[in-house]
Amino acid sequence: NETKPGKVLYDFTAEPGNNELTVKEGETITITNQVEPHHTTPQHHLPTLDIRLRASNGNDPWSVWNTDATGGSSNNWASKPEGTQTGKSAAADPWSSAAQGHPQAYQGPAEDDEWDDEWDDVKSSGGYAESESGESGAMQRGGAHGSSMKISLNKFPGFSKSGPELYLLCKQLVKGKDKLPIYMGEVGPVWSYPETQLDCVVADPKKGSKMYGLKSYIEYQITPSTTNRPVNHRYKHFDWLYERLLDKFGSAIPIPSLPDKQVTGRFEEEFIKMRMERLQGWMTRMCRHPVVSNSDVFQLFLTYKDEKDWKTGKRKAEKDETVGVMIFSTIEPEAPDLDPIEVEQKCEQFSRFTRAMDDGVKEILTVGQEHWKRCTGPLPKEYQRIGKAFQNLSSVFNSSGYQGESTLTDAMTAAGKTYEEIAQMVAEQPKKDLHFLMETNNEYKGLLGCFPDTIGVHKAAIEKVKEGDKLVATSKISPQEKVTMAKRVSIMSYALQAEMNHFHSNRIYDYNRVMQLYLEEQVKFYETIAAKLRQAHSQFTTM
Amino acid sequence: NETKPGKVLYDFTAEPGNNELTVKEGETITITNQVEPHHTTPQHHLPTLDIRLRASNGNDPWSVWNTDATGGSSNNWASKPEGTQTGKSAAADPWSSAAQGHPQAYQGPAEDDEWDDEWDDVKSSGGYAESESGESGAMQRGGAHGSSMKISLNKFPGFSKSGPELYLLCKQLVKGKDKLPIYMGEVGPVWSYPETQLDCVVADPKKGSKMYGLKSYIEYQITPSTTNRPVNHRYKHFDWLYERLLDKFGSAIPIPSLPDKQVTGRFEEEFIKMRMERLQGWMTRMCRHPVVSNSDVFQLFLTYKDEKDWKTGKRKAEKDETVGVMIFSTIEPEAPDLDPIEVEQKCEQFSRFTRAMDDGVKEILTVGQEHWKRCTGPLPKEYQRIGKAFQNLSSVFNSSGYQGESTLTDAMTAAGKTYEEIAQMVAEQPKKDLHFLMETNNEYKGLLGCFPDTIGVHKAAIEKVKEGDKLVATSKISPQEKVTMAKRVSIMSYALQAEMNHFHSNRIYDYNRVMQLYLEEQVKFYETIAAKLRQAHSQFTTM
Repeated sequence: NETKPGKVLYDFTAEPGNNELTVKEGETITITNQVEPHHTTPQHHLPTLDIRLRASNGNDPWSVWNTDATGGSSNNWASKPEGTQTGKSAAADPWSSAAQGHPQAYQGPAEDDEWDDEWDDVKSSGGYAESESGESGAMQRGGAHGSSMKISLNKFPGFSKSGPELYLLCKQLVKGKDKLPIYMGEVGPVWSYPETQLDCVVADPKKGSKMYGLKSYIEYQITPSTTNRPVNHRYKHFDWLYERLLDKFGSAIPIPSLPDKQVTGRFEEEFIKMRMERLQGWMTRMCRHPVVSNSDVFQLFLTYKDEKDWKTGKRKAEKDETVGVMIFSTIEPEAPDLDPIEVEQKCEQFSRFTRAMDDGVKEILTVGQEHWKRCTGPLPKEYQRIGKAFQNLSSVFNSSGYQGESTLTDAMTAAGKTYEEIAQMVAEQPKKDLHFLMETNNEYKGLLGCFPDTIGVHKAAIEKVKEGDKLVATSKISPQEKVTMAKRVSIMSYALQAEMNHFHSNRIYDYNRVMQLYLEEQVKFYETIAAKLRQAHSQFTTM
Repeated sequence: NETKPGKVLYDFTAEPGNNELTVKEGETITITNQVEPHHTTPQHHLPTLDIRLRASNGNDPWSVWNTDATGGSSNNWASKPEGTQTGKSAAADPWSSAAQGHPQAYQGPAEDDEWDDEWDDVKSSGGYAESESGESGAMQRGGAHGSSMKISLNKFPGFSKSGPELYLLCKQLVKGKDKLPIYMGEVGPVWSYPETQLDCVVADPKKGSKMYGLKSYIEYQITPSTTNRPVNHRYKHFDWLYERLLDKFGSAIPIPSLPDKQVTGRFEEEFIKMRMERLQGWMTRMCRHPVVSNSDVFQLFLTYKDEKDWKTGKRKAEKDETVGVMIFSTIEPEAPDLDPIEVEQKCEQFSRFTRAMDDGVKEILTVGQEHWKRCTGPLPKEYQRIGKAFQNLSSVFNSSGYQGESTLTDAMTAAGKTYEEIAQMVAEQPKKDLHFLMETNNEYKGLLGCFPDTIGVHKAAIEKVKEGDKLVATSKISPQEKVTMAKRVSIMSYALQAEMNHFHSNRIYDYNRVMQLYLEEQVKFYETIAAKLRQAHSQFTTM
């Protein structure tokens, strides 16, 4: 158990009975990673994160979009895979989502305390002891969990040097029905896509309770397009699924984090609605992935028949040994082996692209967040004041006692009311368009945050292959093993290319769709304003 | 010569050769009203005013709209006519336009030094020694001038107690052609309106020079609709006309101040353009007034044939004795005398109305100025950033190496450029609509600023009539004079009512017109944005 100092970033006043701590800005608090066996969320050990989020959430549900589009972030893309960040404090790490207020950073106690004892049966006693490294910890988390992980449990399991060789040098590959073929499509290597794309609807969040009402939780109804038969899941089941997918596919496929559980019940309904919307987004993305959606564990989640079926499936999934880098052992590209130089070039290209896109996405999030604030804050206030000023002057005119005043005053009052209506439209518009632009970019931000780790696995494998001659010379590996490693890094490259092609095609679809939606709503918005003003204009006397 | 202390409101660094003084905020400076005989504008003695305006003008030509819609202003409406403000410092007076940055407060040295020696031949040696009392000083200024004023030259000439009785008790009324009839129209007492309304065009500002180029000035071409023959006038001629109109009609008709001469040559062309626009507005308002436009002095200004004609007319106008309250002696209402109670009620009503409208107008100016700032500052910057963010992401997408990317990237780039265009539209829009709304309200602010004085004359006369019995009892006046006073205050009331009806009809016309123009341009603005966005939307793939 480590002890870490942390600096308090904001004043925070604890609410009684919430397991909170009152602190003042600038105070140093010591964070002990001591794990209590029951009824304790891992984040209880990270008061700074908790406090920061409470403070920045405040009245603004959108502060969860906080971005870290500062210079610091890009450094991380380079240094992450080397696993050199041990001991870095969360606040100093620009990738730490908690320090940046990222929604996925906080998994602490929500209204529905889902981290109940039932949870412990699947959790290793290690808990989340390492997880303060944060967002890109999509992988860390999986690693730290490790009840069924066969690979190293160090800080960056699966991505440290000990990672890729497990696959590169393993003797026996997985056989049978779990093979993942890769075909050569028009755009290059592609996964095998099903004829009909799976889809599902997440709906109907319901509050449930257990232990005689002492614990309450939210249950969602998920209906897959294949069976059209709804199944119920609590957030913790999503979380379990996420862990399984991360363990199993994380080295080859970026598995985005789940939306966070929100911290305060103050806007409970809004938050539940947004969480459901984001769970829907997450499920849709998983359904769209041909490898993920076709996996046993994902199918179990969507189509389990009863409690027994679910429990059996769960146990089986947790015992799955084809996890971590071993996923590559199931991949079968229908194409000749690639030259290691080409493998490296491809990997570099994807690394550059995802890094650049990460910057672009964060820029949109930053600008969008500012625009959101302006549209819901000062701008409508100003239109309101313009509207009031017209109406006030109109009512002064009305008091003139002069005859034939009413045409003007009626028209001015109408114009004033129109500007008040515009004020309201302006304030409500972001929910109709900017919201979806932000949500999509936020989703991509999460997805892109997984790439440094995924790409890191590949880079580590490439480095290992480059060392081949030296390893043979020092008798660390046999010449035959060197040949096998080159072949396997080619397989990994096909997987990465298939995944990138999947990413690109989804990205084009998603951005085309969200830009259209945004512009469509913007057009409607401006046209409605124009029509309202035209109507107001018509009430004045034509001269 | 008085000495007055003043507090410096802003830091100001003098420019060499500009007759300026470097001062720091909070410093106290002593203002001496010492008048130098030649080549000196009265405002040279008012460094605080000068400094304040230089500081607040800065880069923003619209800061001249600064309003004083604070509680303080309304007090002044009440206290002004009593002439109790002697010795008040300019900065402490909420009505002082200088302290509020009003455009009409500053008449100091402009690029074209129009206060040359030629001026002195019409200026009394007293100059503007009293004029720091400011904006509502429309009347003060006229009074202080006084070369042809028959009424008292104290601080508030024409409005002090010595004012109205000059007319109320005068023996011989003016005869002949200068009679001003008042008719009973549908709306009540009205001036006699000409069949065709006079109009004029102020255009073609030209720089001239004299004294071998040592002095330069701007000359404007004014073309009246009656003769269609242009005459030339310098600003100082407008100022001379203003003084004459104020002397002659100011007690009965609010004569708005001229637009100010601007202070710095930094935006010279823009300022000349705006000054011309405002001189046009001032002239149009004067032309529209049946009494003003029909007066000899106004006709002289518009239709003088040559230099000799102009000089002769000038001298005659300056010798006019029917000035100040004596203007009422020329007024002939075609209606029975009014009851003094009705006179007072009408006066109170007009006072309330003009005061309320003054507040309403200032509210629009305040809100409009803020809106102007937002539309030309942060808002377009934000649209620009949105546009750039879309374009940046588009160019990242372009680098993906993925096939079939171009439809999306072209569309996203186009969308980004559209938002940059919108940014520019937003920034330029205020000049197309808000400008005219602001100018109209600014004009009305100036006009309404004259009412406390005009109404003050009436209130003083009403008070005098109320004292009638006492004055008879103490043999200050004869019983016959008391009857005359009542009759004459009724005439004054008809004049005020005619003037208010003129004001109302113009107001309805002006606001109807400017609101229409504003809304029309706003409709165009929003429709253009909608059309641009619709075009951008059409470039995305329909799915």
